Amino acid sequence: MLQVDKLSLNIPATTKPRVVVIGGGFGGINLIKKLSGKHFQVVLFDRQNYNGFWPLLYQVATAGLEPDSIAEPIRKLFDEDFEDFHFRLVRVTGVNPVTKTVNTLIGELAYDYLVIATGTKTNFFGNEQIKQYSFPLKQIPHALDIRSQLLQALEQASMTKDETIKQSLLNIVIAGAGPTGVELAGSLAEMRKYILPGDYPGIDFSKMNIYLVEGLDRVLPPMSPKASEMAHRYLAKMGIIIKVNTLVESYDGEVVKFKSGEQIQTQTLIWAAGVTGALIEGLPTESVERGRILVNEYNQIKGYDTIFAIGDIALMKLEDYPKGHPGVAQPAIQQGKHLAKNLHRNLRNEPLQPFKYFEKGSLAIIGRNRAVADLPGNIHLGGFLAWMAWLFVHIYYLVGFRNKLVVVSNWMYRFFTYERGNRLIIRPFVRKDDQVGQEFVNRYRED
Amino acid sequence: MLQVDKLSLNIPATTKPRVVVIGGGFGGINLIKKLSGKHFQVVLFDRQNYNGFWPLLYQVATAGLEPDSIAEPIRKLFDEDFEDFHFRLVRVTGVNPVTKTVNTLIGELAYDYLVIATGTKTNFFGNEQIKQYSFPLKQIPHALDIRSQLLQALEQASMTKDETIKQSLLNIVIAGAGPTGVELAGSLAEMRKYILPGDYPGIDFSKMNIYLVEGLDRVLPPMSPKASEMAHRYLAKMGIIIKVNTLVESYDGEVVKFKSGEQIQTQTLIWAAGVTGALIEGLPTESVERGRILVNEYNQIKGYDTIFAIGDIALMKLEDYPKGHPGVAQPAIQQGKHLAKNLHRNLRNEPLQPFKYFEKGSLAIIGRNRAVADLPGNIHLGGFLAWMAWLFVHIYYLVGFRNKLVVVSNWMYRFFTYERGNRLIIRPFVRKDDQVGQEFVNRYRED
Repeated sequence: MLQVDKLSLNIPATTKPRVVVIGGGFGGINLIKKLSGKHFQVVLFDRQNYNGFWPLLYQVATAGLEPDSIAEPIRKLFDEDFEDFHFRLVRVTGVNPVTKTVNTLIGELAYDYLVIATGTKTNFFGNEQIKQYSFPLKQIPHALDIRSQLLQALEQASMTKDETIKQSLLNIVIAGAGPTGVELAGSLAEMRKYILPGDYPGIDFSKMNIYLVEGLDRVLPPMSPKASEMAHRYLAKMGIIIKVNTLVESYDGEVVKFKSGEQIQTQTLIWAAGVTGALIEGLPTESVERGRILVNEYNQIKGYDTIFAIGDIALMKLEDYPKGHPGVAQPAIQQGKHLAKNLHRNLRNEPLQPFKYFEKGSLAIIGRNRAVADLPGNIHLGGFLAWMAWLFVHIYYLVGFRNKLVVVSNWMYRFFTYERGNRLIIRPFVRKDDQVGQEFVNRYRED
Repeated sequence: MLQVDKLSLNIPATTKPRVVVIGGGFGGINLIKKLSGKHFQVVLFDRQNYNGFWPLLYQVATAGLEPDSIAEPIRKLFDEDFEDFHFRLVRVTGVNPVTKTVNTLIGELAYDYLVIATGTKTNFFGNEQIKQYSFPLKQIPHALDIRSQLLQALEQASMTKDETIKQSLLNIVIAGAGPTGVELAGSLAEMRKYILPGDYPGIDFSKMNIYLVEGLDRVLPPMSPKASEMAHRYLAKMGIIIKVNTLVESYDGEVVKFKSGEQIQTQTLIWAAGVTGALIEGLPTESVERGRILVNEYNQIKGYDTIFAIGDIALMKLEDYPKGHPGVAQPAIQQGKHLAKNLHRNLRNEPLQPFKYFEKGSLAIIGRNRAVADLPGNIHLGGFLAWMAWLFVHIYYLVGFRNKLVVVSNWMYRFFTYERGNRLIIRPFVRKDDQVGQEFVNRYRED
């Protein structure tokens, strides 16, 4: 690979207004889909070359799906009808609202409209030790890492006679009982029941403990109390050890200590305990609140008509949503589409329209045939019906026709056979005494 | 992950004869499939937890297939009818024929029968610089690395105005025109024609050069001159620049120098120029010849009735094959199955039967609808017919029912749409000036 100092952004000059989008997630992609190359030049910056369907990332972590099944290359999404679209795989280092430029590792670019759609990153709440030793789950490499870790821990558990060490390999602690933590725990419990005993006849799986730890007073805190209660019941029935009102204090790679004083020996702490906005340097400090960017109902940042933020990074306080919209896919998708319309309006000198969130409900899957759903109109579903709804929604929203087919055929296969095909360990081993390896892997985990 | 000093092999004691197999490739897997747990205890050591279908590895490198599609977890292959089978994911450090033990990173194990099925590793012919900067293609992480490298080079080519740098990113040099090199070159030429121009509208793909470099005087040297000639014609027609009688002298990450004095600037040198046996410490030196282990017609190592070598690592000089069998899947598969029968014979005090290789022919695919085949009876096929044969054979031999389905549906989809779904860059960036990253990645590439 070349050193970055030999590269430049190389964006063609244009007479059209240039829209610069930072981040190719749900918000950015849905915005760009509605911006035709006829009226705008569109430049997208991202550090990954793909758009992921993140609600299914936990299935990559638990060997249910392959990485390619939940992601589409960005260039494939925009390769035909988007004549003046330019993707650049490079890191944005900051923005300058005064000169109206975006700075990247390989140079700066002027914008007419700037859209910040950077989403969130894992929040370790400043705990460097947890950051170093725990496994986050925000990106595809994270999911592959967790998959490898889970399988390697079982391989190692079959290679020890020391019961304490074995138990520490068989204890899995998931910090955070939001949708990611809950779905991961459910998926692991299914593996423990249906798959792993066949693979590891030497291990007594009644000793494999899955802990789901939540700082608040219930699982799935973003959902309704009714959904939480159903989810709790399903999880407990699957043998998951749920600890609410429990905060992690420290983890040194061997022992998780809780604020309560309790501790668990484990080689695997999965950190799904929180996210924070992936902020960008150069924004006025008064526009940042609790890690998110304050926007008005047009997704504009205060004081700047042509800088917008959409999706998880945006904090739009409306009467119905005084704390902003939930950090899920729908607000990002809807804001992206809405902003595209507003940019077209702006071009035609028409007034912008305020964003209105159309609440479609929320869902979490807990296992085979079981899910919980909060639907508009105060309707709460559980069990098989919610599971069918989950399946339908996820298949429907999966990006790209090919992925949909592959995912559905994988799911059908698994439903009827209980089998999962993807139990490959495809990362290198990094031992704790291997300093170079550790330094590399830890750095790589940072985002 | 635990330090290895806390682990032990933990193999249960047994009254049955213990067969220790090193290596879960074509040879080892086919051997174990035929050894029932009733008569033997079987222990398999491997450093990977999967059995790969390596003839399709190049498709992972060129974004045609996903890693999980060409590999099956070893524990899944042997999870039911194999009661006294024990897989251990650990590195073997040597054998001791005198004490009849195998040494591993985490302890030693006594064997009654030892089977060495370690296959081959990339041969860099002692050139440390080439080892450091080139991309081998022997394992799944290698294939993912090549895929990422090819895509990142194109991403970078769209981010430079410097024509020399751009050309060095658009030059791909493949060293070695054996089946791997030929199939990789063909696959890249198809990507260049059908896929990449849509993805990278800013790049002039007439400038993307694919060099296929071979030290001997023809492409596909293991196949018939007739097959070589057809393959050469197909490759040339696809715009691949073929250089035979050309040896690589050096590569510093920027420039490939040939023995002839000629040189090519490239960021991507793929090293498919040779393999050497993955030997194990402790074998008598007189049993090793040119990196392979000399065996008799029963796959026994000279002087040791109970040590066997099968597959690529074994060198069985018979009248028909004075230089040993070709380094492809069939001899390994057949030797594995044959040795299983011989071990059963040995147990019954019957005489061992000599191995006879049943030549099924060889095949190489060059692109859409084009392949070459040497069949028994001096029959040489080319074009569509050979391609159909290739397709049939590869689908037939793919390990596992599920993979077969996924691969076939991927291929059907690609055949009709020319599309490939898997263009995700899922490795971390490692810049050349990043010493920790380089050290880690280079070490990781070693095997």
